[in-house]
Amino acid sequence: MSLTLATCRIIADTALATGREKGMKPLGIVIVDARGSVRLTLVEDGNALLRPDIAHGKAFGCVAVGVGGRALERMAKERPHFIGALGGLSRDRLTPVPGGVLIRNAEGVLLGAVGVSGDTSDNDEVCALAGIAAAGLKADTGE
Amino acid sequence: MSLTLATCRIIADTALATGREKGMKPLGIVIVDARGSVRLTLVEDGNALLRPDIAHGKAFGCVAVGVGGRALERMAKERPHFIGALGGLSRDRLTPVPGGVLIRNAEGVLLGAVGVSGDTSDNDEVCALAGIAAAGLKADTGE
Amino acid sequence: MSLTLATCRIIADTALATGREKGMKPLGIVIVDARGSVRLTLVEDGNALLRPDIAHGKAFGCVAVGVGGRALERMAKERPHFIGALGGLSRDRLTPVPGGVLIRNAEGVLLGAVGVSGDTSDNDEVCALAGIAAAGLKADTGE
Amino acid sequence: MSLTLATCRIIADTALATGREKGMKPLGIVIVDARGSVRLTLVEDGNALLRPDIAHGKAFGCVAVGVGGRALERMAKERPHFIGALGGLSRDRLTPVPGGVLIRNAEGVLLGAVGVSGDTSDNDEVCALAGIAAAGLKADTGE
Repeated sequence: MSLTLATCRIIADTALATGREKGMKPLGIVIVDARGSVRLTLVEDGNALLRPDIAHGKAFGCVAVGVGGRALERMAKERPHFIGALGGLSRDRLTPVPGGVLIRNAEGVLLGAVGVSGDTSDNDEVCALAGIAAAGLKADTGE
Repeated sequence: MSLTLATCRIIADTALATGREKGMKPLGIVIVDARGSVRLTLVEDGNALLRPDIAHGKAFGCVAVGVGGRALERMAKERPHFIGALGGLSRDRLTPVPGGVLIRNAEGVLLGAVGVSGDTSDNDEVCALAGIAAAGLKADTGE
Repeated sequence: MSLTLATCRIIADTALATGREKGMKPLGIVIVDARGSVRLTLVEDGNALLRPDIAHGKAFGCVAVGVGGRALERMAKERPHFIGALGGLSRDRLTPVPGGVLIRNAEGVLLGAVGVSGDTSDNDEVCALAGIAAAGLKADTGE
Repeated sequence: MSLTLATCRIIADTALATGREKGMKPLGIVIVDARGSVRLTLVEDGNALLRPDIAHGKAFGCVAVGVGGRALERMAKERPHFIGALGGLSRDRLTPVPGGVLIRNAEGVLLGAVGVSGDTSDNDEVCALAGIAAAGLKADTGE
């Protein structure tokens, strides 16, 4: 089983709706599949130029390293030289903070990752989790 | 007036629906705004790893150089060294073929560009044009 | 309304004149528009090789992330791994220190950013602010 | 003797005035010194996103390789593999077409280069030559 575009749309629409309900700042969301290839990007109005890249770095970074964004941030604090190197190895496509969440199916198979950016990292993650839950899939924040 | 996410959704949904109606291969679509910043990416199931990058290069290349994809392809044939250089100058984010189409409003103001990839370049362009028309905006293919 | 070259010249000439009046070291100034595209660069005599890049990173970084240079520096101190990642995501075009200032019009619309470099970061910022004020526009240092 | 900012302003103001007199499209101009470091950039209103980079690649490319833009284009046609390699070696900062012109003083000492972009390459070069002449310096187009 792989990640379908239909599933990506459910995740993204719920994530963005969650941000609107909670009055968050304009968000950007990127979903990559298990290969790290982008399947969906949606960036709300009023965002900074780099928003899609920041959100992409959250999603891609999680799939690239195989852990959630909280684990990447923990690694960044404990072993900054390692995350610095991973940044370069990923060709500068890694945003090691919360808001990047792995997507797994019921059997635990990795399907991809969601990256949300625009509000606080904690709020970004709330939206990602709402989206993954709406699709009936399992989230891994790296906590 | 700038490009809204709501407009991007209209363009993309119509573009992808056009591909399905016409029995095209799975498509990827990217829409960038006038800043060259990605506002929407949707990649249908069954696509190659690089599909979103190819579609992005079509959209970004058009906005970066200020012409449609057919003009970029013409330049590539007539002055390959110049398009080669533009590829580098754009940090390898330029796909100089049809399927990249500039989006303008009724007054001719540049709003961004659409890049579609997955079928033949001509078919890709058909989808981009259908999407832009559905949004009531003006398309510039560079022809 | 967008940023014109005429406005950029007013900002830059005033900024550099301010540096001369106050006896600052030779300065470099870069102004980017809301797309992050360079509209003006002026580098005074006697500067180091990297001066235009440092000034560019101040201006581009502000527009890319949507905040002033003081906010970027604060983020760099509080979450160095995040600013480190933004550096990579921006393709190494971010200088997260004061002297980068967002330019907005009276209605608060983002027009671009100024980056000044050459003296202390605080002094660099004084020049940027003088330039933006001379153009009758609003400055956002991120403080 | 080295290139001063005052000289760069004379070159650029004359180059841009020439473009206006002749009814050319909006131009971008970049001047780099003998080190390849940018001393001046001015981009007229209504230009594409990549304009400053294209103009920079003309100026930087000339200084980097030590020949004018016409020589770079000739090399690109005769030995495309070599110019392709130079593009990479210059870290994608080379635009091998006319409009890039070396600046020398009366003794033939290299002071830097001008890159103009926006109209046809031939017209771009006309503006660069007018600017260099106005500063009383010698131009080398690589012809």
